[in-house]
Amino acid sequence: MTRRRTYLELCALLVYLSVNVKPVNGVWPLPQQIDISAERYALSPQFFSFTYGKDSAAQTGCSVLDNAFKRYFSVIFPDFTHASGSRFHHLWSEAKPFVVSVSVKTSGCDGYPDEDSDESYNLSVSESQALLKSVSVWGALRGLESLSQLVYQDDYGSYFINKTEIVDFPRFAFRGLLLDTSRHYLPLHAILKTLDAMSYSKFNVFHWHIVDDPSFPYQSRRFPDLSNKGAFHPFTHIYTQTDVMRVIEHARMRGIRVVPEFDSPGHTQSWGKGQPDLLTPCYKGDVPTGTFGPVDPTLDSTYKFMESLFKEVKSVFPDSYVHIGGDEVSFTCWKSNPNVGKFMEKMGFGKDYTKLESFYMENIVNMTAALNKTAIVWQDVFDYHERIPQDTLLEIWKGLPEKYEDELSRMTKAGYRVLLSAPWYINHISMGQDWRNSYAVQPQNFSGTDEQKKLVIGGEVAMWGEYVDATNLSPRLWPRACAAAERLWSDESKTLNADLAYPRLTDFRCRLLRRGIQAEPLYVGHCNHEYSGL
Amino acid sequence: MTRRRTYLELCALLVYLSVNVKPVNGVWPLPQQIDISAERYALSPQFFSFTYGKDSAAQTGCSVLDNAFKRYFSVIFPDFTHASGSRFHHLWSEAKPFVVSVSVKTSGCDGYPDEDSDESYNLSVSESQALLKSVSVWGALRGLESLSQLVYQDDYGSYFINKTEIVDFPRFAFRGLLLDTSRHYLPLHAILKTLDAMSYSKFNVFHWHIVDDPSFPYQSRRFPDLSNKGAFHPFTHIYTQTDVMRVIEHARMRGIRVVPEFDSPGHTQSWGKGQPDLLTPCYKGDVPTGTFGPVDPTLDSTYKFMESLFKEVKSVFPDSYVHIGGDEVSFTCWKSNPNVGKFMEKMGFGKDYTKLESFYMENIVNMTAALNKTAIVWQDVFDYHERIPQDTLLEIWKGLPEKYEDELSRMTKAGYRVLLSAPWYINHISMGQDWRNSYAVQPQNFSGTDEQKKLVIGGEVAMWGEYVDATNLSPRLWPRACAAAERLWSDESKTLNADLAYPRLTDFRCRLLRRGIQAEPLYVGHCNHEYSGL
Repeated sequence: MTRRRTYLELCALLVYLSVNVKPVNGVWPLPQQIDISAERYALSPQFFSFTYGKDSAAQTGCSVLDNAFKRYFSVIFPDFTHASGSRFHHLWSEAKPFVVSVSVKTSGCDGYPDEDSDESYNLSVSESQALLKSVSVWGALRGLESLSQLVYQDDYGSYFINKTEIVDFPRFAFRGLLLDTSRHYLPLHAILKTLDAMSYSKFNVFHWHIVDDPSFPYQSRRFPDLSNKGAFHPFTHIYTQTDVMRVIEHARMRGIRVVPEFDSPGHTQSWGKGQPDLLTPCYKGDVPTGTFGPVDPTLDSTYKFMESLFKEVKSVFPDSYVHIGGDEVSFTCWKSNPNVGKFMEKMGFGKDYTKLESFYMENIVNMTAALNKTAIVWQDVFDYHERIPQDTLLEIWKGLPEKYEDELSRMTKAGYRVLLSAPWYINHISMGQDWRNSYAVQPQNFSGTDEQKKLVIGGEVAMWGEYVDATNLSPRLWPRACAAAERLWSDESKTLNADLAYPRLTDFRCRLLRRGIQAEPLYVGHCNHEYSGL
Repeated sequence: MTRRRTYLELCALLVYLSVNVKPVNGVWPLPQQIDISAERYALSPQFFSFTYGKDSAAQTGCSVLDNAFKRYFSVIFPDFTHASGSRFHHLWSEAKPFVVSVSVKTSGCDGYPDEDSDESYNLSVSESQALLKSVSVWGALRGLESLSQLVYQDDYGSYFINKTEIVDFPRFAFRGLLLDTSRHYLPLHAILKTLDAMSYSKFNVFHWHIVDDPSFPYQSRRFPDLSNKGAFHPFTHIYTQTDVMRVIEHARMRGIRVVPEFDSPGHTQSWGKGQPDLLTPCYKGDVPTGTFGPVDPTLDSTYKFMESLFKEVKSVFPDSYVHIGGDEVSFTCWKSNPNVGKFMEKMGFGKDYTKLESFYMENIVNMTAALNKTAIVWQDVFDYHERIPQDTLLEIWKGLPEKYEDELSRMTKAGYRVLLSAPWYINHISMGQDWRNSYAVQPQNFSGTDEQKKLVIGGEVAMWGEYVDATNLSPRLWPRACAAAERLWSDESKTLNADLAYPRLTDFRCRLLRRGIQAEPLYVGHCNHEYSGL
């Protein structure tokens, strides 16, 4: 039976509530400027709404924001479908409505985020309203995420938000996360779930290392045999064109770019199963051994195939970047093959197989450039001094700080833009709080001019798949990857201290759990709502 | 539309099937003797049944086996509720029935497994039947597990089993797994799921490290304030008496003992919250600091409380063993406390606080002995040379092989029975196949007589909870813990080679996935049925 509470009961309740609220731990990653006041407002799902500002270039019908409003309503009020809030319904029925008003300067609701996307936003939370202003819809998404993290529940499940002012923008434009779907196949839902979690940490690039030696799960329209013969299974372990479209659209809705990687000439064993004559036959003396090495860089057919493939890639993946790999090419097989030897001679490469590798990579880079795609390559390509277009993005994956700092210096001195991934190989695990190592990374801490520093456009967390599949992906990624997310978004000077970050990250991890992300604990303790999906 | 296949079609199908079957990788952990022939029989869920042998001491109504029959039917035929098998229904309708006949010598269906349980079994699979014979129902459970692992599916989803003879028994009687529910609370379903997986690897003891410094989730009947004040949350983060009973019964059904640990005098910070005067107040000079140390061993009230608590423990946990801890006692607080100082003087302990610790542990051991419980203690208790009953079981948790091998020597020389856990601290993680280290452990490889070797009664995998909760428990446990499971069950001479074990463990891990256990991959590759629970 519901009864109306007396005025005294209500007062007692309000006094009790006001001293029994959880501390506001703010927003992860830390905004550039954030001022949270002690003044707070009760929120009720029944009286909470999103709306477009009158002056907003985007209005109802804007796919990205309409969907974000729907999504964040559930994220902000996780109990809404349950009965738990109804107890206080009559109490809040006297509360004022709370409106989140979103205004963007430019529309672009049907486009894709890109390297030039403006992700800045201003958020002002006051009594009865929140004003969110941004240049682009992508900035509005970042603001909605921050807003959602400002809302908290007390022990009764009632929702609150404090008076808050945020001015925010990312430190780096490229904040990526790599998943490897070749060493283990990741079911579609694992990828989509990862995109959800990425958006909570404001990651904005999904680097899809989609194929590699062990398997070729990408179902090509032009070359269906690549997955028919190269996937772990031709039906259950592939990504159909529809799957890929779903990933891209799911990512777009969250302001995340999808950059596919088709790594060659090495890391292509699985390609060879469905594409005869693509790989170099290895020899012992004059006799082929039956095994194969990297892509054969001596044949015209190789380049025809690669051009066809990249034309398809261009038509499938809208992002202006494509990762073309170029790492870890072993020369052993090339050296064994007499035709490769003849080709070396003809080209005047002598015995220097790095020249052969360069020759191949130049061809691929030029191919993608002709398709209006900017190429990303692993650092090996720079290390071999290929003549590659100046707009090629170099990705550092090797070594300890001394080593990658030196590489940062040399690459930026040569005028190239750089992505840092080496310190964020998150597939490397050890017991304890290794997120602190990720957090301590200083991407611009190398010897170079200010102009050089600006050429570091961001970084990537890499989850290589040797030991990772859908069974352990989420707890290995989250919240460990969040450390890099803050490093790449937030002001370095305000986020130098991991001990200060620890309670915020602990709180954020509980938030991730509450949103259904299987994020592992940082250390001893508990969340109000433990993971219950096991 | 269903149509009858022609004779020729059937023959073609059978020939096709016979060359397209997956290799039989056998049983994990490896049985003492196993002989799998190439001769195989098709199984159909419609014509498969379990029955009790005529001469069996257990018959229908035997709780443990009735439940096991029901459980293993689903485990053996995971697709049965789906439509996938029906396609060949008319084909198998001509197949002969297959009956698993189970005979046990002694009944004991309503009892609990204990240290003397006979887990041996003989399994003989031939055309149309499997004969499973064992002394106890616990042995029958082990045999049913092995039987379930002999069944495999071809690419069409059809089930097969090969003609097989198994003679099997465990190498060690105590094959335990420790979960820590104090550093993080593990929801009940996470514990039950772990018991499921334990039974698949033939683990037979669940060591429940139920309370510790960070939290006291055990809801005591006699001392409800222990969890009211000492749990992370008094309602959501506790184990009620019903919860505990469910764990014990779930374990019993799988032939698993539940040994609770109430660790004292150290590791008791959470106890102090709900039990005033239990812990030693720490002093700075003459002034109490407000912080507390280990249990106060000087007060009569302490022993009255502990006796009450262990009486309750005895009534709740049926196993004849109880773990009473005794590890890592810091003397700092005891040393600071003037009353403890006086007590030391009175007892003639001088300045030797190990004597005080001994005094306390002796009291607890005698207390549990009076309750007819055998105590398990951490190695620290032996290291301090307490006068403890000879039947106390010592558990080794410290150090590298050289160190624990030496400890094994000394303990067994003193005539004590020993459990080895040190090399199986599975909460220690690193990238790569660290299961190989667990697999390489040789528990009887220490200097000592044959009699001494026999005193090593088993070992335990320990999953401490600093960095582990329900989000990452399963993938960290499985299949890594399986390495110790085989070491503790199987003949050492037949399981020395980890490379030989690798394909079997890879296959077993896919089986675990198929059974809903979130077991992580060993290395690059795939399972036919990937984990889909994310």
